[in-house]
Amino acid sequence: MSKPSIPQGTRDFSPGVMAKRKFILSTIESVYKSYGFMPLETPAMENLNTLTGKYGDEGDQLLFKILNNGDYLKDINLQEVSSKTLSPKIADRGLRYDLTVPLARYVVMNRNDIAFPFKRYQMQPVWRADRPQKGRYREFWQCDADVLGTDSLICEADFIRIYKDVFARLGLQGYELRINHRRLLEAICIKAGASQHFKTITIIIDKTDKIGADGVARELGELGLDQNAIATLSQFLTKSELNTSTLNMLEANLGDIPEGKKAIDDLRKVIELSGSAIANVALDCSLARGLDYYTGCIFEAVPTSVKMGSISGGGRYDDLTGVFGLKDISGIGISFGIDRLFDVMEELQLFPPAGMLFTDLLFCPMDETAIAYCIPLADQLRQNGFKVEIYPSATKLKKQLDYANNKGISWVVVVGEDEMQSGLLSVKNMQSGQQTKTESTKIQEVLQSV
Amino acid sequence: MSKPSIPQGTRDFSPGVMAKRKFILSTIESVYKSYGFMPLETPAMENLNTLTGKYGDEGDQLLFKILNNGDYLKDINLQEVSSKTLSPKIADRGLRYDLTVPLARYVVMNRNDIAFPFKRYQMQPVWRADRPQKGRYREFWQCDADVLGTDSLICEADFIRIYKDVFARLGLQGYELRINHRRLLEAICIKAGASQHFKTITIIIDKTDKIGADGVARELGELGLDQNAIATLSQFLTKSELNTSTLNMLEANLGDIPEGKKAIDDLRKVIELSGSAIANVALDCSLARGLDYYTGCIFEAVPTSVKMGSISGGGRYDDLTGVFGLKDISGIGISFGIDRLFDVMEELQLFPPAGMLFTDLLFCPMDETAIAYCIPLADQLRQNGFKVEIYPSATKLKKQLDYANNKGISWVVVVGEDEMQSGLLSVKNMQSGQQTKTESTKIQEVLQSV
Repeated sequence: MSKPSIPQGTRDFSPGVMAKRKFILSTIESVYKSYGFMPLETPAMENLNTLTGKYGDEGDQLLFKILNNGDYLKDINLQEVSSKTLSPKIADRGLRYDLTVPLARYVVMNRNDIAFPFKRYQMQPVWRADRPQKGRYREFWQCDADVLGTDSLICEADFIRIYKDVFARLGLQGYELRINHRRLLEAICIKAGASQHFKTITIIIDKTDKIGADGVARELGELGLDQNAIATLSQFLTKSELNTSTLNMLEANLGDIPEGKKAIDDLRKVIELSGSAIANVALDCSLARGLDYYTGCIFEAVPTSVKMGSISGGGRYDDLTGVFGLKDISGIGISFGIDRLFDVMEELQLFPPAGMLFTDLLFCPMDETAIAYCIPLADQLRQNGFKVEIYPSATKLKKQLDYANNKGISWVVVVGEDEMQSGLLSVKNMQSGQQTKTESTKIQEVLQSV
Repeated sequence: MSKPSIPQGTRDFSPGVMAKRKFILSTIESVYKSYGFMPLETPAMENLNTLTGKYGDEGDQLLFKILNNGDYLKDINLQEVSSKTLSPKIADRGLRYDLTVPLARYVVMNRNDIAFPFKRYQMQPVWRADRPQKGRYREFWQCDADVLGTDSLICEADFIRIYKDVFARLGLQGYELRINHRRLLEAICIKAGASQHFKTITIIIDKTDKIGADGVARELGELGLDQNAIATLSQFLTKSELNTSTLNMLEANLGDIPEGKKAIDDLRKVIELSGSAIANVALDCSLARGLDYYTGCIFEAVPTSVKMGSISGGGRYDDLTGVFGLKDISGIGISFGIDRLFDVMEELQLFPPAGMLFTDLLFCPMDETAIAYCIPLADQLRQNGFKVEIYPSATKLKKQLDYANNKGISWVVVVGEDEMQSGLLSVKNMQSGQQTKTESTKIQEVLQSV
């Protein structure tokens, strides 16, 4: 048997990594829950007709398809087939590509049982057959929250609060929350006399971070825009603090365009409903986030103290479920990318050391009788909420202490003949080295005294 | 677009179901952690050469295979291919079938970084292309804990405790924990002079629950065993309480067979190390659990107050990682089937109602101004750990209260002009109907007073 391996672009999450990932996931979950979001999980596999055509041509290419079971070639004429024409005949299912399409599919299937507005969160892996590279995986976790069935702007304000709460609880200070409005982008293009190129322009300006302002200007020129149009675009496609004076200035310029007026009114309302949470939120008129299903506010969170792309994004969409036959359900949602967030937290050393502790106390038995002696003591501590192990054999103490160190165990109690006779145990703190002698029934008091 | 659906044998887990599943999973997780187990997660996809041949021929048939990406037919001669011969050429990866093989693969790949004994738990979905039927799904969750790298029988005793702790915390009283020992089964077959049929005999007696004792005797007869052999087998393949007198009786009959002596010695030690947790554990000499990789103790937990198969099983294995080239790693593990456990809990109505509460309090705004008025109040409550929502629009009160009822929200605060002017709010309990008038800053005190 050759050496075992795992598929390219996938990962095992070892206990140390898992503890940190769980810290991130449970933090986000607790914030989502505090705003009344409810958990949903959908299957890893979806029917391919649910997935295909929802992510553009490139997305279709990146779907993982599952081979049909049984004699899947039966009734298939293998003359003149290609990979492309054979796939739909031998694969009816694929792995989910994101959590948004499954949500839309779920809402349409369960529309009669759902109480709208429907606030759900979903934290599950997704799969994409992308070329693996640093920070890009074929299996990765998304962490979404969406509200469906209301166009109230309190949702936008709630998501601004959710961002602040999540980052505060994670201890992440260096980040920027950027907002834009789809209609504002449209108004700017109309102002520049370039509304017929709207889609292409958003794709180009989305690349600002990669190709710079010069690169954007060059590509806009290649699109056939004249210098005036490009100048108008550059004038507005800037970043400033989201506040009333910024909006007043924009209204003076774009208020006569209906799309501009709508966007500015929406953003004023968002400011009003956000209260103090709006401080330091940036209005980034160049933010488009590619996806053309956004129809209102668009969000993006970017770390500033580490060089890294966005760690979360989202926005309002007016017709998520239309593609499955349910019209007029307005919604809004955001998604955290756990892998990038993990890398940021790691680089800034923001993970609490307590999150690493799997076991509070290890009993180290010096002989076979000591194992049995420790069992009721361990039981008692577990009943009171402590995580406790007994080293499973009376091997050399050094080996047992190495095990404690490897696992980051804080407390160790060595039990040999003397201890069993006297009933007095030494409870040792592995970090400070401090030892406390105590009766066997009072170990808990030592653990709690620190 | 036709009505969307999900693949056969898969399920969406709606919020209400998710809350209950999370209750089960977090309960098991907290018990695992209290014994020093650490979390591990492995990818949904494994290379097919990791999976193939590990689950028998039938298992190989039930693997979900993932179609290779890109032009997967390139360089493949489609003359004379069948579904069976084509699969290995166009699918290099498959979905994991259980959590045990991925564990073995992980341990072998990371053997130099792991501190043994390695105690890990893993709670993830697995996929099998079984024919879907009531209670059998193509995607289902397993919830495993294993200790690798020690043959100490304290592990067996710990798992007995873990079963007791898990069922106690779930509130499940009507269950039976059954134990057997592989060597005891062997000794019984030797005693009956039928050791050459050992494997087949275990398969037959494993069916006792389905075909009854008569069916077992008939099939043993068909195997060619004479009446004496069958009588000996039936004499020993019974169930009794696991205690010293049972073992003494067995030792008198099987103590001269080395396999029997070893099993009885092990079980005596397990009794010693289990303390009071051994009460009501059954020694079921007919328990084999099919898997021939078990080499020592075998476990099974079966609900007794509901008609249902086993909800957990496990045992000791001496060579889990050998198939991947790492010999002599003894281990032991158990696995809970979450779906069956869920059904048992549901039938016995054991889920706590508190597990259903997604939102503690809903503010019901009567006009637009009220929405903004409620925001800082909601913020304050969230900061203090409450789950709070503001209904996103000032729609009819009935609609808002329906929403609260649908979601099982306990507390409702209606805010209109009077309330904003007086600063006095009515906090209503939706279950009792009781209303309390309070200052807006003191809502928390009302919530905590119950």
